[in-house]
Amino acid sequence: MARWEPNARERLVEAALTLFQERGFDETAVADIAARAGLTERTFFRYFADKREVLFGGSSELEGLLVGGIAAAPSPLSPLDAVAHALEAAASFFDGRRPFAKSRQAVIAAHPALQERELIKLASLATAMAGAMRQRGTPEPAASLAAEAGMAVFKLAFARWTGDAHKRPLAQHLREALEQLKAITTGLDRVGRARPRKTERAARPRGDRSASGTG
Amino acid sequence: MARWEPNARERLVEAALTLFQERGFDETAVADIAARAGLTERTFFRYFADKREVLFGGSSELEGLLVGGIAAAPSPLSPLDAVAHALEAAASFFDGRRPFAKSRQAVIAAHPALQERELIKLASLATAMAGAMRQRGTPEPAASLAAEAGMAVFKLAFARWTGDAHKRPLAQHLREALEQLKAITTGLDRVGRARPRKTERAARPRGDRSASGTG
Repeated sequence: MARWEPNARERLVEAALTLFQERGFDETAVADIAARAGLTERTFFRYFADKREVLFGGSSELEGLLVGGIAAAPSPLSPLDAVAHALEAAASFFDGRRPFAKSRQAVIAAHPALQERELIKLASLATAMAGAMRQRGTPEPAASLAAEAGMAVFKLAFARWTGDAHKRPLAQHLREALEQLKAITTGLDRVGRARPRKTERAARPRGDRSASGTG
Repeated sequence: MARWEPNARERLVEAALTLFQERGFDETAVADIAARAGLTERTFFRYFADKREVLFGGSSELEGLLVGGIAAAPSPLSPLDAVAHALEAAASFFDGRRPFAKSRQAVIAAHPALQERELIKLASLATAMAGAMRQRGTPEPAASLAAEAGMAVFKLAFARWTGDAHKRPLAQHLREALEQLKAITTGLDRVGRARPRKTERAARPRGDRSASGTG
């Protein structure tokens, strides 16, 4: 039973998410997940410490990407733009994982204890980003404010990305959310729409939405 | 034993915070709190459902103040300024409670489960503020972004207020934190310091900063 199984990890993740959605997280046992994947429990535990790790196992990798992205951000960037740079750099982490992300969000949304765990994960990512900002020389409170504001951008962009029928990449949703935060912060747009963008980072089609607003 | 006791609530809160700091939250029983306050457990339960409520009992009142403050914010305000208006209006909730707030923060900082509870409370306040913003006509995503950014401002201001040796009011820390968020968001101050404050709220200088920085 300990023989090598092709795509074991992917099969386990898919089985787990299917069962979490069918039966609920609490009602799903590791044995059920392994059985649905056609694998053994022992194989499951080679990849995950427990069933919760199927949902949260990627967070230390993500933290490393964010911290590394902040360290690598060009130095003339403003604090918020440095955080945004790291978020965009980390967006590749999610490329190709939209179906997983979408199912995962649905499972978490249905379960208060998982929502709490998600909040704690996001807060811990914000704390790590604030530390990375201080490392690169940004003083407090700018370091923490930029990290917190960046996390607000990330949450919005992520929610839009998982629900995007047009399947535009996460990086693009991040850029749009950042623009929207800037628009509400500068306060020139009374109704809170994104302001017109005269410059494009990579010729994004958004003119339809941004044609008015900023007085 | 059921007779009326003067300042019972205050005495219980003070006893609870003292014991939480002396012994730890988990090691303190309701009986200990009541005894230290010179009151009965029955009196304790007239004011609090459990010992955790000593720390978190004010959150629904605070939520009401924030939601009411957003509803009452003048309509020409930008989304973030409407949230800031509500935060300042709610600041009076904390007036005179700095010693409590400071002890409470120390207790929470020493206890991971209480930190998680605090995170959940803050997230729930942000959700309530976003709902109040939609109620006043702010569309998504501006409503949620303004609420999240406002919460970042609140957290920073609150931490600074509890530690402020000069005892300046919370409202003033809120205004400063808001300015700092605007400074890092517009990105004109490369080192992330707050800009000099030449004027107070009634006539905040914003034109110099909003002339560029968003494109």
